[in-house]
Amino acid sequence: MSEPSTGRRRSRGKREARDGAPGQNPHLERPYIKRGIPTYDILGEDALQQIEATADRIMAEIGIEFRDDSDTVEMFRKAGGEVTQLDDTRWNTKFAPGMIREILKTAPAVFTQHARNPANNVEVGGDNVIFAPSYGSPFVMDLDKGRRYGTLEDFQNFVKLGQMSPWLHHSGGTVCEPTDVPVNKRHLDMVYAHMRYSDRPFLGSVTAPERAADSVEMCRVLFGADFVDQNCVIMGNFNTTSPLVMDGITTQGIREYAKAGQGSIHLPFLLGGAVSPLTMAGSIAQCLAESMVSCAVAQLERPGAPVVLASFLSSMSLRSGSPTFGTAEPAVGSLVYGQLARRLNLPLRCAGNFSTSKLPDAQAMQQAMMSMMSAVQCGANYLLHSAGFLDGLLSMSYEKFMLDLDLCGALHSYYDGVVVTEDTLGFDALAEKGPGEHLFATAHTLRHYKTAYYDSALDDNQPWETWDEQGEIDMATRANTRWKAQLAAYEAPGMDPATDEALKDFVARKKASMDDAWY
Amino acid sequence: MSEPSTGRRRSRGKREARDGAPGQNPHLERPYIKRGIPTYDILGEDALQQIEATADRIMAEIGIEFRDDSDTVEMFRKAGGEVTQLDDTRWNTKFAPGMIREILKTAPAVFTQHARNPANNVEVGGDNVIFAPSYGSPFVMDLDKGRRYGTLEDFQNFVKLGQMSPWLHHSGGTVCEPTDVPVNKRHLDMVYAHMRYSDRPFLGSVTAPERAADSVEMCRVLFGADFVDQNCVIMGNFNTTSPLVMDGITTQGIREYAKAGQGSIHLPFLLGGAVSPLTMAGSIAQCLAESMVSCAVAQLERPGAPVVLASFLSSMSLRSGSPTFGTAEPAVGSLVYGQLARRLNLPLRCAGNFSTSKLPDAQAMQQAMMSMMSAVQCGANYLLHSAGFLDGLLSMSYEKFMLDLDLCGALHSYYDGVVVTEDTLGFDALAEKGPGEHLFATAHTLRHYKTAYYDSALDDNQPWETWDEQGEIDMATRANTRWKAQLAAYEAPGMDPATDEALKDFVARKKASMDDAWY
Repeated sequence: MSEPSTGRRRSRGKREARDGAPGQNPHLERPYIKRGIPTYDILGEDALQQIEATADRIMAEIGIEFRDDSDTVEMFRKAGGEVTQLDDTRWNTKFAPGMIREILKTAPAVFTQHARNPANNVEVGGDNVIFAPSYGSPFVMDLDKGRRYGTLEDFQNFVKLGQMSPWLHHSGGTVCEPTDVPVNKRHLDMVYAHMRYSDRPFLGSVTAPERAADSVEMCRVLFGADFVDQNCVIMGNFNTTSPLVMDGITTQGIREYAKAGQGSIHLPFLLGGAVSPLTMAGSIAQCLAESMVSCAVAQLERPGAPVVLASFLSSMSLRSGSPTFGTAEPAVGSLVYGQLARRLNLPLRCAGNFSTSKLPDAQAMQQAMMSMMSAVQCGANYLLHSAGFLDGLLSMSYEKFMLDLDLCGALHSYYDGVVVTEDTLGFDALAEKGPGEHLFATAHTLRHYKTAYYDSALDDNQPWETWDEQGEIDMATRANTRWKAQLAAYEAPGMDPATDEALKDFVARKKASMDDAWY
Repeated sequence: MSEPSTGRRRSRGKREARDGAPGQNPHLERPYIKRGIPTYDILGEDALQQIEATADRIMAEIGIEFRDDSDTVEMFRKAGGEVTQLDDTRWNTKFAPGMIREILKTAPAVFTQHARNPANNVEVGGDNVIFAPSYGSPFVMDLDKGRRYGTLEDFQNFVKLGQMSPWLHHSGGTVCEPTDVPVNKRHLDMVYAHMRYSDRPFLGSVTAPERAADSVEMCRVLFGADFVDQNCVIMGNFNTTSPLVMDGITTQGIREYAKAGQGSIHLPFLLGGAVSPLTMAGSIAQCLAESMVSCAVAQLERPGAPVVLASFLSSMSLRSGSPTFGTAEPAVGSLVYGQLARRLNLPLRCAGNFSTSKLPDAQAMQQAMMSMMSAVQCGANYLLHSAGFLDGLLSMSYEKFMLDLDLCGALHSYYDGVVVTEDTLGFDALAEKGPGEHLFATAHTLRHYKTAYYDSALDDNQPWETWDEQGEIDMATRANTRWKAQLAAYEAPGMDPATDEALKDFVARKKASMDDAWY
């Protein structure tokens, strides 16, 4: 393992904090958030039990269809699943009520994902909260060049911008698709970029079992093989094929991560009415069933492997059938899903800064807030899609990335809630001058001046006249200025040159070992 | 009282619903919302008691300063207050712990505010939620003409746009300042506009006791004097003069409304660090003390008069001292204030769609959502500032008004929460085709297709290519198109001509009775 130094965090923001540039809030910086407020629980016991019973019925009476992975089917058969072979490559498997729940008892409620800089290790589960950038967009966009396919340079840019922000805790995974790199080699460049340009934890490849294996192998180079065997240093984000199907690429990938003792996230991506019932209660039940079975694949492969229960609840336009993101119904659905995750005692990934807008405009942030606040309040532990999401996840936006980062900063303060002490109650501050006198100069005000409120990097709070004189600049334009300034100021965190060489060598050898594939 | 017919609601939207224009959601229309989700309670019993004890100490040890209204001081003296005369026009009054709480026991937990159309009556308090437009901006703005002083025409426009929307439940009060009308006559035109162009409940004038009296008198013309004496048909929104002062205009106005059996809202507008402690716990305690004493003025004048406890918690820029709105700290503060209001068993006004942005941009909706969701979740009953708020309340924006209305519609669905029944659990829908098959054509999907998700009037959910071909229009521009189309389609709700004449006559006589005053 390379020898990271906590001092390297200095490359991210500390210098700016000293000269007081906008958006610095050193009192709020932390490697991950520990929530100071309770979750928002909206459903009572009876309703929760009805949803759980429906999930049980789905698993017991409809079953999950596995494809192209007889080993996974065999694991479930041995564990008590009722397998029906449908054809050469497809098996339906039904699970008696309680069976999957029993298997999941070996999964940890909380686990550590290690970063190459130990100061950036994150705790996944419990009251802990981790913000990670958006994941999986083929396009990128910015105000200067509009929408275009993502490249490796874009990918590296987003990793760098994330690394520079104190308000993310995790480097994410496919921050955008580097479409200028062959499909079968992208994972090598992506994993290297996370390792080299960030010193936070990250996600590895899931698009093929051998790419998952490469991701883990690169971690062995970076962290050392023994360390990797004993600790979670990488996670994969796996989607079920809803409704109720798990393909072989996915189940083999999950097992690859689990076998190595690494983490996996188990995500049903449910567009209500398309791949799940149109009504939210039904989508939630199906989501629970799918994610539980997916988590169980990892537990059967290696009991105790870290897993994250997940949900991506979505809606559709009642006019066109188009998917819609950041709407009200999935937001309340996510609150319920959080309650169910806690009853399973599993870490949760849920929602994020979703939007269908094509611009970093009012729609973008209205929808993002609807979705993101549900993630905050439902008790989600790992918030993928915390920054950059636009265009229904088809585009990663440079400006939206900065808007979302600024929001993530404010959420650090939100999670702290209202602290009640003699000092914060401020009776003496009010008594000092009494009725009718302002409190600007009280000792209490001066004492709390720098920490009472989050200082936004992007909000305009000036008088209208000043804003007008300065050119009537909107928030998206301010974000455009900011991401360029941030990228220009980026400095890579230090890395032992021998480790860097070993990683580059691994990438080069792997790339040389196969022809380019573009699909 | 004029004879309103429930059929008049037809002028608002029903026709549009039939031909399926965007934004119609007839299943969500209702005269006010009854919340289907619990409140979000973030503080425990000990912390709540500490805040209440601090509010008690503020009232008992610092006291409230009354100005220019010896009658109010005399009422409190008789009720047990400890009065110290400071000079000819100022008195400090201290209240023993529990005294104000005892006085407030006569206030109703829930009351009805009547509209001239009884179908639009609202219930204030309990689980009921009422959205009202923003209040008090001297300026208006739109994308075509930018910012300028508000006029009576603007005022009428906002009343009309509000009336046309199914997502507001109340016509509000000073939707903008009609600065082209003399200050001492504005209230007459404003109250007339609410009565004539809307058939929902509204707020009256509070800027002088005689204007409060005129507002009530006009209600007697519209509803009949006996009806007004027995029912709440108008409310006034009264601000304390923080910290801890109540001026005579305010206390006399409160008594004017209470004397007539009408409602009053009791609002401390607290900019933390300026007129209240910088730390949120202290602001909340002070807010509670001020609003409770203000409510007590009404109860002493006429026990049982409808009152609404209120809060407007705000923060400031740590750089400039400028007020900031829609930030995280007041949002969590509002959640706590909601808990305190319920312990007093009083209706609550709290937060709204706040922003300091000068444009209907990303900042506007990010901040608006932060604040509005806190109002939704804290259990607020009356949400003033639900639509139009920009520029730190200095400007009422036509476009923001439409954005906020669309959000208010979505919140109707949010408040319904997740409904769990055999039908919404949708097991049969999933079982119908089984794993791997989409659900577009299931009976369940077809049955719920029109009501499962809110249909936004303004969101763009199209594919990027379609949006691009149509001119890359942002949400603010869509809102600009929409408010113009809505205004062009406006039809006034019917009114008995004799009542209309009587109202116009009252306004004309009052205006003729005094010279214009412009300050």
